[in-house]
Amino acid sequence: MDISELLAIEDIRRVKYRYLRAVDQKNWAELESVLTPDAVADYGTPAMGKPLKLEGRDTILKFMRDALGGTNITTFHFAGQPEIDVDGDTAAGTWAFEDTVIVKDHRLVIKGAAYYEERYVRDPGAGWRIAHIQYVRTFEMTHSLDDLPSLQLTTG
Amino acid sequence: MDISELLAIEDIRRVKYRYLRAVDQKNWAELESVLTPDAVADYGTPAMGKPLKLEGRDTILKFMRDALGGTNITTFHFAGQPEIDVDGDTAAGTWAFEDTVIVKDHRLVIKGAAYYEERYVRDPGAGWRIAHIQYVRTFEMTHSLDDLPSLQLTTG
Amino acid sequence: MDISELLAIEDIRRVKYRYLRAVDQKNWAELESVLTPDAVADYGTPAMGKPLKLEGRDTILKFMRDALGGTNITTFHFAGQPEIDVDGDTAAGTWAFEDTVIVKDHRLVIKGAAYYEERYVRDPGAGWRIAHIQYVRTFEMTHSLDDLPSLQLTTG
Repeated sequence: MDISELLAIEDIRRVKYRYLRAVDQKNWAELESVLTPDAVADYGTPAMGKPLKLEGRDTILKFMRDALGGTNITTFHFAGQPEIDVDGDTAAGTWAFEDTVIVKDHRLVIKGAAYYEERYVRDPGAGWRIAHIQYVRTFEMTHSLDDLPSLQLTTG
Repeated sequence: MDISELLAIEDIRRVKYRYLRAVDQKNWAELESVLTPDAVADYGTPAMGKPLKLEGRDTILKFMRDALGGTNITTFHFAGQPEIDVDGDTAAGTWAFEDTVIVKDHRLVIKGAAYYEERYVRDPGAGWRIAHIQYVRTFEMTHSLDDLPSLQLTTG
Repeated sequence: MDISELLAIEDIRRVKYRYLRAVDQKNWAELESVLTPDAVADYGTPAMGKPLKLEGRDTILKFMRDALGGTNITTFHFAGQPEIDVDGDTAAGTWAFEDTVIVKDHRLVIKGAAYYEERYVRDPGAGWRIAHIQYVRTFEMTHSLDDLPSLQLTTG
């Protein structure tokens, strides 16, 4: 590894961190800024039924707004362990991540872990952005908040 | 980003990691070393009631010793996703984090997630230190260990 | 810190991430590639009873295959907060980590947190590899999946 690759890796990590924070903070403008126009997302997760393939940034953003907008759903996405290989203006990366999703109306909590596999593209104007996201679930647990009779929950 | 900024970011990450480990290991001397004398902490968390604003390193250290000292409380702070911007000898950063707090006497576990927003200052002698810590909770769940009848718990 | 140290730290982080992913994905060839032949692991964890000291890469690999092989056990290891100090061709590092272990046949889930303390060695041919792994548990919680009556679990 040389210094230019290390600088590119740090830029890509930042893009991914912004993506994760934008989803949790429901900041759709920031989310838009980290995806290429033709970005593809494979968010396959057992709790949502069939694997979900979203093609194009507009489709991803519409899905996020519809699925996560409002105050009913709280999400926390926590990713680390980036293994990123840079090849000129493209890069590929693997990440470990855990996510927590709380659906207040249905009194559900979904807790999962997975490994992301992603691709990134560098554009002269926009810098590094995410071109493809997918993950393979390690596990996913869904249960009712009522399973914990004493539970007190606060969401931001 | 250039190399000097990347080196500063790594230094700041190290300071933050030392802070988190010092809290969990109750190493108050190490905790002192990563805070500026006038550091301010806004540790607002629903489980503690009203937002808590601590002004000055001595105040923060006293709070930590009083709240976490002894063997009754076990904490684990896990932060990642650093988005750090350096501007000369000051810097600002955002982090995702999850924390687990176990209060043995009260048979309680508190599990939360949040985004930190922090400021750092570089001193010619002491290097980078934390000048301001605050966070906004994404969620916080508190429940009794007795909600899990088969639970076996070990703390270090 | 200088640039050569920063590059070494990134290489070591990559080795650790590969180790963690290899364990969770049960990729024993990849796991072998990140350990020195004389690597030692101290995986002391209350759920396994007495502290477990494994001496030599072959011993570690045999333990992993025996303990984690097959589909009964699902693991997720999530580490961060690397504090790595490089000294020529050796290095020492501390990491925070959380792990989740699901034992389907016994309907058990084990959730723990710890701080790793590790040593690394750089070989002219093999690059950086892990020479010594150990950790000190912060907490460990084991309970039956049946404690959560509504639980739906999927493993990958």
